[in-house]
Amino acid sequence: MSSFRFSTEIRVRLPEIDAAGVVYHGVFFTYFEVARSEYLKALGLPDVWKAPGVPTLIVHAEADFASPARFDDLLRVEARIAGIGRTSFTFEYRVAGERPVAAGRTVHVTVDPATWKPVPVPDGFRARIDAFEKG
Amino acid sequence: MSSFRFSTEIRVRLPEIDAAGVVYHGVFFTYFEVARSEYLKALGLPDVWKAPGVPTLIVHAEADFASPARFDDLLRVEARIAGIGRTSFTFEYRVAGERPVAAGRTVHVTVDPATWKPVPVPDGFRARIDAFEKG
Amino acid sequence: MSSFRFSTEIRVRLPEIDAAGVVYHGVFFTYFEVARSEYLKALGLPDVWKAPGVPTLIVHAEADFASPARFDDLLRVEARIAGIGRTSFTFEYRVAGERPVAAGRTVHVTVDPATWKPVPVPDGFRARIDAFEKG
Amino acid sequence: MSSFRFSTEIRVRLPEIDAAGVVYHGVFFTYFEVARSEYLKALGLPDVWKAPGVPTLIVHAEADFASPARFDDLLRVEARIAGIGRTSFTFEYRVAGERPVAAGRTVHVTVDPATWKPVPVPDGFRARIDAFEKG
Repeated sequence: MSSFRFSTEIRVRLPEIDAAGVVYHGVFFTYFEVARSEYLKALGLPDVWKAPGVPTLIVHAEADFASPARFDDLLRVEARIAGIGRTSFTFEYRVAGERPVAAGRTVHVTVDPATWKPVPVPDGFRARIDAFEKG
Repeated sequence: MSSFRFSTEIRVRLPEIDAAGVVYHGVFFTYFEVARSEYLKALGLPDVWKAPGVPTLIVHAEADFASPARFDDLLRVEARIAGIGRTSFTFEYRVAGERPVAAGRTVHVTVDPATWKPVPVPDGFRARIDAFEKG
Repeated sequence: MSSFRFSTEIRVRLPEIDAAGVVYHGVFFTYFEVARSEYLKALGLPDVWKAPGVPTLIVHAEADFASPARFDDLLRVEARIAGIGRTSFTFEYRVAGERPVAAGRTVHVTVDPATWKPVPVPDGFRARIDAFEKG
Repeated sequence: MSSFRFSTEIRVRLPEIDAAGVVYHGVFFTYFEVARSEYLKALGLPDVWKAPGVPTLIVHAEADFASPARFDDLLRVEARIAGIGRTSFTFEYRVAGERPVAAGRTVHVTVDPATWKPVPVPDGFRARIDAFEKG
């Protein structure tokens, strides 16, 4: 797996912990979301892609869990866009504290906000991502 | 895909809705959890497997999203154990309202609660699931 | 405290449990929300007051906690509108399992959806609530 | 209202936004929790008071909401212990972005972890807080 060029940090909150004393697995999809938002903002793409009314739909989400995270852990969450298709793109994530914690992937379809039907990924978005990820 | 023998119902709550007016994708992992809990309880397996201190770990979770769910929708969530390995088992889920909404899968490893190391799936658990799913 | 004429049931979900093995205190505001939604729906008032775009704002929320609730507990959540002012109304709640668990209160201001400024509580809403609570 | 000597920052996350496009009111109790955790950690009191197994119970929580917070807002959350009784203490909070957003209060009872019965607030805790808040 090649390297990630973007990462952000997240401090584990108490209500994110479950009865076993570790971060509830569903919470990692929120951590992915935070990293995705910060990634897009860092690349100057937040207004269209991430704000309320954003014309994308998530069609797939997955995560693998390697070791538990605990209350007050400081986690590094890496994010990248690993591929862009005609009407969709794929984010990948890695979460680590002192050890690898989780890895994941989400697939996003670009849609017409009026009809929610797939539309081509805008050229400007594609170019900006390519410049960042392959530059 | 063969049929599911267990299902439960979930009414969508307002705080589960995101800014786009649909159920936030991460919430479906909670819906899967509710169905998994109810499935195990229905089979008489709740105390050991689902209560706080439960000796299983989730190592993988994934979901595909077909159409949005909205506030106050009544969703049917189907669950089944689709496979049992030596130290793990796999749950599958389907969520539908008037249309198919989501499908997913979680993989659970049975562990020693003292060491959190994998241990064989207990024979009694395996037999109870087989009786339900294949009976 | 006089009686409540409306109640609904909620089964405690695993991710609602915190590291101490009890329902996280912030989750009770979601339970209040569920009861409030069901109350308004039961009175035929859901479309305007509870759906996305609803013209009310919460200006106050509070809860007192008497005893813990645990995973899989079946809770009865009572709700009522205890008072209606010129531009606001107050909901009260009680949550109990085998013992009293929590009680709370939320205050809602009716607003113009365009300006988010307070507007008088509609006469029809007021009449419907009065008929239910005092009838 | 006198000044707060402690504050922390929170960036609003997308799943914390509700269908109206603003932070869901119940989420502020999580923001209060984050500020409370950071406050206690900053004062060197985290292990006993905030980690899983912490011997305190929340008996009251409340919040007033002044103006909405939105996705990606950077909020300053102030916290202080405003009073310490024989077996309880009270936290107060203020949340602001460009404008005041919310204010709140939580009351915590110190308990014996074995019996969950109230016990006196430890002298060391009381002295540390007094030194910080009144020093």
